[in-house]
Amino acid sequence: MAGVAKATTLDGAGEPKAKKGKAPIAETLALAQKEISVAEFFERNRQILGFDSPVKALITAIKEATDNSLDACEESGILPDILIEVHKTAHADELRICVEDNGPGIVKRQLGNIFGRLLYGSRFHAIRQSRGQQGIGISAVVLYGQLTTGHHAVVTSKIGVGHPAVRVEMGLNTKKNEPEMFNEAMDESWTKPSGTRIEVTIKAKFQGGRQSAFEFLRSTSIVNPHARFTFLDPTGVKTVFERVTDEVPAKTTEIKPHPHGTELGTILKMARDAKQRKLTGFLTEEFSSVGSDTARKILSEAKLENVDPKDLSREEARRLHEAFAKVKIMAPPTDCLSPIGEQLVRRGLKKETEDVSPEFITTVTRPPSVWGGHPFQVEVGIVYGGTLPAEEQVRILRFANRVPLLYQGGGCASTVTVQDVDWRRYGLDQRGGNGMPTGPAILLVHVASTKVPFTSEAKEAIAPMEEIQKEVKLGLQEAARHLGRHLAKKAKRAKVSEKFTLVNKILPELAKKSAAMLGKPTPDLSTIVCKIMDVVWIEDPIVAYEKLEGQTVMVRKKAEKAEAGAPAPGKEAKGEKDAKGDKKAKGKATLEAFAEAALETAPADGAPAAPEVQQKPAHLAKSTITMTNYMMGSKKFRFFVVVPETSVFVSATPEPKTVKDRYLMWEIPAMKPTEKLALTYQVAGVEKGGVDDVETFVEGINELHVVGADPWRGGE
Amino acid sequence: MAGVAKATTLDGAGEPKAKKGKAPIAETLALAQKEISVAEFFERNRQILGFDSPVKALITAIKEATDNSLDACEESGILPDILIEVHKTAHADELRICVEDNGPGIVKRQLGNIFGRLLYGSRFHAIRQSRGQQGIGISAVVLYGQLTTGHHAVVTSKIGVGHPAVRVEMGLNTKKNEPEMFNEAMDESWTKPSGTRIEVTIKAKFQGGRQSAFEFLRSTSIVNPHARFTFLDPTGVKTVFERVTDEVPAKTTEIKPHPHGTELGTILKMARDAKQRKLTGFLTEEFSSVGSDTARKILSEAKLENVDPKDLSREEARRLHEAFAKVKIMAPPTDCLSPIGEQLVRRGLKKETEDVSPEFITTVTRPPSVWGGHPFQVEVGIVYGGTLPAEEQVRILRFANRVPLLYQGGGCASTVTVQDVDWRRYGLDQRGGNGMPTGPAILLVHVASTKVPFTSEAKEAIAPMEEIQKEVKLGLQEAARHLGRHLAKKAKRAKVSEKFTLVNKILPELAKKSAAMLGKPTPDLSTIVCKIMDVVWIEDPIVAYEKLEGQTVMVRKKAEKAEAGAPAPGKEAKGEKDAKGDKKAKGKATLEAFAEAALETAPADGAPAAPEVQQKPAHLAKSTITMTNYMMGSKKFRFFVVVPETSVFVSATPEPKTVKDRYLMWEIPAMKPTEKLALTYQVAGVEKGGVDDVETFVEGINELHVVGADPWRGGE
Repeated sequence: MAGVAKATTLDGAGEPKAKKGKAPIAETLALAQKEISVAEFFERNRQILGFDSPVKALITAIKEATDNSLDACEESGILPDILIEVHKTAHADELRICVEDNGPGIVKRQLGNIFGRLLYGSRFHAIRQSRGQQGIGISAVVLYGQLTTGHHAVVTSKIGVGHPAVRVEMGLNTKKNEPEMFNEAMDESWTKPSGTRIEVTIKAKFQGGRQSAFEFLRSTSIVNPHARFTFLDPTGVKTVFERVTDEVPAKTTEIKPHPHGTELGTILKMARDAKQRKLTGFLTEEFSSVGSDTARKILSEAKLENVDPKDLSREEARRLHEAFAKVKIMAPPTDCLSPIGEQLVRRGLKKETEDVSPEFITTVTRPPSVWGGHPFQVEVGIVYGGTLPAEEQVRILRFANRVPLLYQGGGCASTVTVQDVDWRRYGLDQRGGNGMPTGPAILLVHVASTKVPFTSEAKEAIAPMEEIQKEVKLGLQEAARHLGRHLAKKAKRAKVSEKFTLVNKILPELAKKSAAMLGKPTPDLSTIVCKIMDVVWIEDPIVAYEKLEGQTVMVRKKAEKAEAGAPAPGKEAKGEKDAKGDKKAKGKATLEAFAEAALETAPADGAPAAPEVQQKPAHLAKSTITMTNYMMGSKKFRFFVVVPETSVFVSATPEPKTVKDRYLMWEIPAMKPTEKLALTYQVAGVEKGGVDDVETFVEGINELHVVGADPWRGGE
Repeated sequence: MAGVAKATTLDGAGEPKAKKGKAPIAETLALAQKEISVAEFFERNRQILGFDSPVKALITAIKEATDNSLDACEESGILPDILIEVHKTAHADELRICVEDNGPGIVKRQLGNIFGRLLYGSRFHAIRQSRGQQGIGISAVVLYGQLTTGHHAVVTSKIGVGHPAVRVEMGLNTKKNEPEMFNEAMDESWTKPSGTRIEVTIKAKFQGGRQSAFEFLRSTSIVNPHARFTFLDPTGVKTVFERVTDEVPAKTTEIKPHPHGTELGTILKMARDAKQRKLTGFLTEEFSSVGSDTARKILSEAKLENVDPKDLSREEARRLHEAFAKVKIMAPPTDCLSPIGEQLVRRGLKKETEDVSPEFITTVTRPPSVWGGHPFQVEVGIVYGGTLPAEEQVRILRFANRVPLLYQGGGCASTVTVQDVDWRRYGLDQRGGNGMPTGPAILLVHVASTKVPFTSEAKEAIAPMEEIQKEVKLGLQEAARHLGRHLAKKAKRAKVSEKFTLVNKILPELAKKSAAMLGKPTPDLSTIVCKIMDVVWIEDPIVAYEKLEGQTVMVRKKAEKAEAGAPAPGKEAKGEKDAKGDKKAKGKATLEAFAEAALETAPADGAPAAPEVQQKPAHLAKSTITMTNYMMGSKKFRFFVVVPETSVFVSATPEPKTVKDRYLMWEIPAMKPTEKLALTYQVAGVEKGGVDDVETFVEGINELHVVGADPWRGGE
């Protein structure tokens, strides 16, 4: 069909008349065919919105309210301070939930739309990473409360000093999907400069365990380290989930749609609505990553004149769409994403798993990628060992856009991908090399995107998109390799440790006693010991942390300053540049320079930091690594310690040959048989525990004769 | 809040004025807050509707169209004959899909609403089991086609002889969620008396495998044995999935909401809209399972006068709601459900798994139950052995309201419940007693309900409702017990079979040869054989089936007739009554009476049978079971064969002591050591293969000394 014909109006009068016989069944059936209001639909199918059970309803209500609060605070550069209260009511099956934030507030004329109408919001039409996307969540809570208890919600909001706090009771007309508001008044008792409070009474049940309101807030706190949550549960217990950083995540940028994520029908609609008079203007202004050059290439590939977009036919739009796939177009910008970061994920996991004393934690932040034109980024973490149950399936902590996903795990791209990795290679148990692995481990998967493809409005699981699964898999494999290395090292150590005990404890005792009995001098056992051991034994580091009181530090500023003030310790320390040249610590410093810089740049009063610098907790770590040569001959080799990229080297004994952003390298001088060497180094700008399990490597010695370090593969 | 205050109108003019300072952030944020059209929402989130990938889009499109066709045919008592064509187009990533049925058709004035508007349909407001519920599916297909290819759909429908076939091109205005129709015309080429045809061009991909259009239709055919599907794939291959019964499932009845499934908010809304002037009338007429007595008890429990429902306050409605839970109310009627039935599930599984030659199939249909006031029923099947892979996880075939669920298995109540059963008890491998079991098995789970709580609009998975999971678990456990018995029997047989070979083959040979060499008569080995074996050995039945040509039979009518015409073979054969007294074969008959009855009641021309009788394929099964006494002494015992409840006993040698609906029982006379007994029986009204693996039981003999039958636990 070329062009679009005028819509035909059909009405009952145009119905063809039967020539004979009784009324067709279709006429009877037609009587029952009716419009369904979106609110009625969700009222009936409330499990789709996450209200399947009273326990889940409580979590969903808290989740929707806190999501909104966190989004609003982030958009406004406010450090979130969110109060969540759950109160008992006169009825055992009802709870009253209040969520109050210190966000920007909501203007009065929009209160009804936001809380009393489904499919109304600000984040649906904007392409950027946010928790809310649909304009359904919080009004669904109001709807659910109304449905299950008959109570209206109460909304209070204040948009700033000098504006009154407005309080209104809120219902939802499900037949029309419109708000119903009652008893509007000023709330004189409100004290914060701005903020929003919602109170709902819903059918709900409070309980503990993994899928609980408490766990939801704990997990939310892990991936929102800048937020403070105060939780009052119905038994009267108050828990504060304190923020661990005062830095508000950079406000994510809104982007235009990317050509690769735009369907043919969308192009047609955009072209029809275009303000531009030429296709080139349309392409460069309405799409991201399309410059004039690219636009011209696209038109040429599509064999299109630079016409008015409004004149585009279906067939022409189709050629344009096909050209999008053929012409090389830059990936969409990724500053619309807000990943948590390896350090913060690690810190979160550490906090979450303190009670199980894990032996190993690793985190991976993958580079940004694109699925169907939508930028996304994957972060992965693994916690291993300690008192985690060895005989159970591993636990998976799933997150999307900084929101924990507690339900529908089985149908989630993250879980499916975990099951698709052959974990046997990395030291976990797994029947047949697929399915859920077994072992003392917790896996964390976070997917951040301008568009997370959730499987339902409840946003509980991510649909299995190929590109996302691929990135999650790469992240899991990378983290799993770290785990595998750790376990291999551990196994090797265990294998040698029996020998070790023998030659180091028992043999010398025997020799001493025998010598004493015979009245002879104790013989030198080193040759025998080395003959039996035949390895260089490297202990794990022993680390002491020292908090640099009152100091936080902006890594970037400090690094620049320090680099000028303190001479680099090794010749390779200069000129090491991150390709992107930003956000990373690039200089080396003495402790004095470091502390000085830190004091200078610490923010005065916890005001949000400028997004281009990164705030670090100022710990000084003093590490000692001991190594012993249990081989027959003298051994010299190179020894590498990998340090966090954002840490700052302070000093070391002996002096390292090389100091780079990512590692320190020593030339170990020839060690005689049974000779011991203690190597110490200090780095600053790390968090407590941050260098406990650094990776160590050796070069210039056969890896079979080394316990406690892997062979160095070169590179950065 | 007592009563409902008049809604306050808030507009921009009422906005509180700031006393000082710059414009609050909330004002900026408010500019972006907008309404979202439901069509735009689903356009953006098409994965929620099952259009995540081109492969899945094809299946979803076919599924939505066939669901509609099957529902419409069932509602109209038409045997469905559905043609599904998938054609290539000029573009590699586009397919044209046509689905044409012989259903009742759709009146012209409703075509636009049904195909061009989301949330419009006839099944949303009716409480009964149907495939479609939401009024989203088929219009979502139109929307997806428009979005991905820019093409309109083409809909043709004819509502009966004498009415023209109307053809119209169909689009969807996403901003308004309204149909756009073009080029309406009569389709002169249409030949069927009535029916509907939809053609859509969508971005899609055709492929094979488990999650394919072909498999979807194959599975659909299993659970819709009355439907014929003709599938033309894009490579030109045509497959007919022939119907295996000519009986249209009984049209499911529409019921009123049950008090236990009604939320407080719904009661309030229903009361406001009530036509009745008294609460008693309101309760008895608007709810199912509430008679006058129950209504009075509810009012008394709620301490309510018999007032006008419109005057009900929130607090009074709450008391009513609480009384619903306290007063004993009958379960909702279950004739609104349409389970497939054990026999048909079994037949479907047999057909589906022919290529793997399974050794064992069992099916269980649970009695109807209720979740949150909604009637539902669970059916379960297990296929075991043959060439199914022993080292892989079992495969699960999931169905809801006779529709196969191919995606989101991990998040589905059926899968979750499978993982919650300890399969180790029943002979499958399973680490730790939960999670997916491993073994050569396929599990089938069908949930039928007036309301299946799907996790999303794509209807791919069932939300984990406690009551549903409980029933699924009971069904799985019951079926698993059958499997466990089968495997135990098999293991016991295997254990004894080595001995068996020795004593039956080798010992006699040895004896014969030794005797011949010594020139002595062959000794009688029976004592020795029995000493070694020490069991009664019962072989599995050998069955021959004979098709009673041209005959089908209505079990109920025939049974009544036969009972009068033929004397019952055992004294207990009379007066055996199913408590419900319907639908089950209750009489016994000679083959002649059976055939006569069958001929008399066979329908003339495949016209749909009246729902209260059940149509059976008329096979006669002749079974022979051989048993040998390999014990030292004579053995007499009772022997039971369980037959399908719907089969009809014809004859047996020796004559059974008891003939019941569910089993036959013989008093086996004292068998001497090594004596053999061949027992034969004939039953009619079974499908081919239907009594291959009957269960057999013994009584009056120590179970340790029986191979091939379980101990009889008594009861029906």
